[in-house]
Amino acid sequence: MSEFDLIRAFFTDIGPKRADVALGVGDDCALLALPEGQCLAVSIDTLSAGIHFFPDCAPEAIGHKSLAVGLSDLAAMGAAPAWSTLALTLPSADQAWVRAFSAGFAALSKTHGIRLVGGDTTRGPLSVTVQVHGYVPVGAAVRRDGARPGDLVCVSGTLGDAGLALRGLLAGEAVDPALRRRLEYPTPRVELGLRLRGLATAMIDLSDGLAGDLGHILAASGVGAELDLVHLPLSPPVADVVARTGDWSLPLSSGDDYELCFCLPAERAREVRELGAGLDCPIRTVGRIRAKAGLACRLPDGGLYATDGSGYDHFAAGGDAARLIALRDKSRISAATQSLHSQPSAR
Amino acid sequence: MSEFDLIRAFFTDIGPKRADVALGVGDDCALLALPEGQCLAVSIDTLSAGIHFFPDCAPEAIGHKSLAVGLSDLAAMGAAPAWSTLALTLPSADQAWVRAFSAGFAALSKTHGIRLVGGDTTRGPLSVTVQVHGYVPVGAAVRRDGARPGDLVCVSGTLGDAGLALRGLLAGEAVDPALRRRLEYPTPRVELGLRLRGLATAMIDLSDGLAGDLGHILAASGVGAELDLVHLPLSPPVADVVARTGDWSLPLSSGDDYELCFCLPAERAREVRELGAGLDCPIRTVGRIRAKAGLACRLPDGGLYATDGSGYDHFAAGGDAARLIALRDKSRISAATQSLHSQPSAR
Repeated sequence: MSEFDLIRAFFTDIGPKRADVALGVGDDCALLALPEGQCLAVSIDTLSAGIHFFPDCAPEAIGHKSLAVGLSDLAAMGAAPAWSTLALTLPSADQAWVRAFSAGFAALSKTHGIRLVGGDTTRGPLSVTVQVHGYVPVGAAVRRDGARPGDLVCVSGTLGDAGLALRGLLAGEAVDPALRRRLEYPTPRVELGLRLRGLATAMIDLSDGLAGDLGHILAASGVGAELDLVHLPLSPPVADVVARTGDWSLPLSSGDDYELCFCLPAERAREVRELGAGLDCPIRTVGRIRAKAGLACRLPDGGLYATDGSGYDHFAAGGDAARLIALRDKSRISAATQSLHSQPSAR
Repeated sequence: MSEFDLIRAFFTDIGPKRADVALGVGDDCALLALPEGQCLAVSIDTLSAGIHFFPDCAPEAIGHKSLAVGLSDLAAMGAAPAWSTLALTLPSADQAWVRAFSAGFAALSKTHGIRLVGGDTTRGPLSVTVQVHGYVPVGAAVRRDGARPGDLVCVSGTLGDAGLALRGLLAGEAVDPALRRRLEYPTPRVELGLRLRGLATAMIDLSDGLAGDLGHILAASGVGAELDLVHLPLSPPVADVVARTGDWSLPLSSGDDYELCFCLPAERAREVRELGAGLDCPIRTVGRIRAKAGLACRLPDGGLYATDGSGYDHFAAGGDAARLIALRDKSRISAATQSLHSQPSAR
């Protein structure tokens, strides 16, 4: 048995056995049965060393996060996780590393009942690509394009924690373990996403920051929004930074929150608050959809906050620290905040 | 619009529009409808620069091949191509490169009617991961485990061409363009795979060489096989190398053929020959399944050929040239030829 085969052995039985897997790992293709009346939802994401995580990041965390980002995408559609595939590129056959990576991947797989059905392991610079597959009843998926003027804008959890942890790590500071956990072990809001079917009019997961990601909903729905910054849900350390600096970029435009941002008719606000309480996942109303294009951020004093819109460009940046962005596709934020810049303060 | 968005634009409309794509590129997930009575077949593969292709390989060829290897996996199950997803990691935002890559990917997508429905573009060392999705009527997929003693072993096309091209390129020699095309623009045998439903008892695509890949069929089916080397389909340049050196490793254990190897009851030999003629894809019977375990390779003089079994180990190799293997998962070959080594010549 080669080292390669040994590595493969770590991935033969990850996640619970499922009746909808006719054939899993070990043939040219996996064979999967989609229940009648269901639509298949798929999403693929790559995490690369030095770009999406520190090269010395715990392998268990990399295993967790590489699946979590995909689960978060399923959550954002209201889809139920079913199967995953994994393409793992490794610089060497370090079995301790692979064992820990697969443990992190397996633990989260178990939590969400998702089965690893196929993969590829190759040699090269460390990189992990995961595709997730879920299902959602035909017509029930929550897309980005359904937000309507008057809808409330809500978010789950707290914003900016992962961004603050990343700042600290990049600065070489000691980072509070709870904050660091928010960066390295994000919690995909799968159950919340499922419960928001038929309730949310539009939804997205926050991977690049609220301003940019909400911007995608606005663009797809052909609407605008006004956010009340005072209502943004902030953990104490993030609230402290904002209070000290007056800089809202942590909750607005740092990445890796993996919370859900969604819109819903105002009359259903109470329903969704109760839902959050039942799931032990706080939900906060942070703004409102309006017909006028653009994203306006209202400061606590009533003025408008101008985000600087200097989105991170994946490809323009240089240097190892700058490359470690954790703010995936950060460049997209520019488009979202564009209309804000060209718009004079309303006050 | 950032460079990143521009790159994304190259991938928004690849492959024909399909009625079974409810939502393609541009939301958190793609939404796909599987026709009733069909099973979903999926396969994921990574090609990395310096490992699976030369860093200066034409981007069009990389685009073609990254999809071709997946289509070949679908072919090997008898599955009809439907959708693809693409995770592309790029060191820089070189638009000319991306344009050519996407052209190669798009041309093959069009040929096989497969639609790109989602993806991810990140910065990092050049690497391409593609997942293909196809469908096959429930119960009709051709797996690796159905070969029975007495079945014929057949292969499509010719063997060892890509391996010979790779040898030449690694040695810095001028390589015949037709041979090089076999390495860089492999032809997935999709139509043949579809026609072999209900005819082949077991099937695999040849990515790592006939000995190793047939070995997977033998292991999964719990049988052995005897190959008549004289019947291996060889192009003139490969036949020449074998005749000069007596070394059969090109057709037996070099990678990247992307031909199909399949088994079928002897009484259906004529059917399959006619099928090949109709598809302009020569099919050759090269051996027979037997109950006795192991793979025996019969030389033209009637003796047994001992393959050396020194499979390429992805992780053990060093040096740029050695790393460029093109022989994906080559290490698997060891297991397949193991039983041959430990078995004395029958003569």
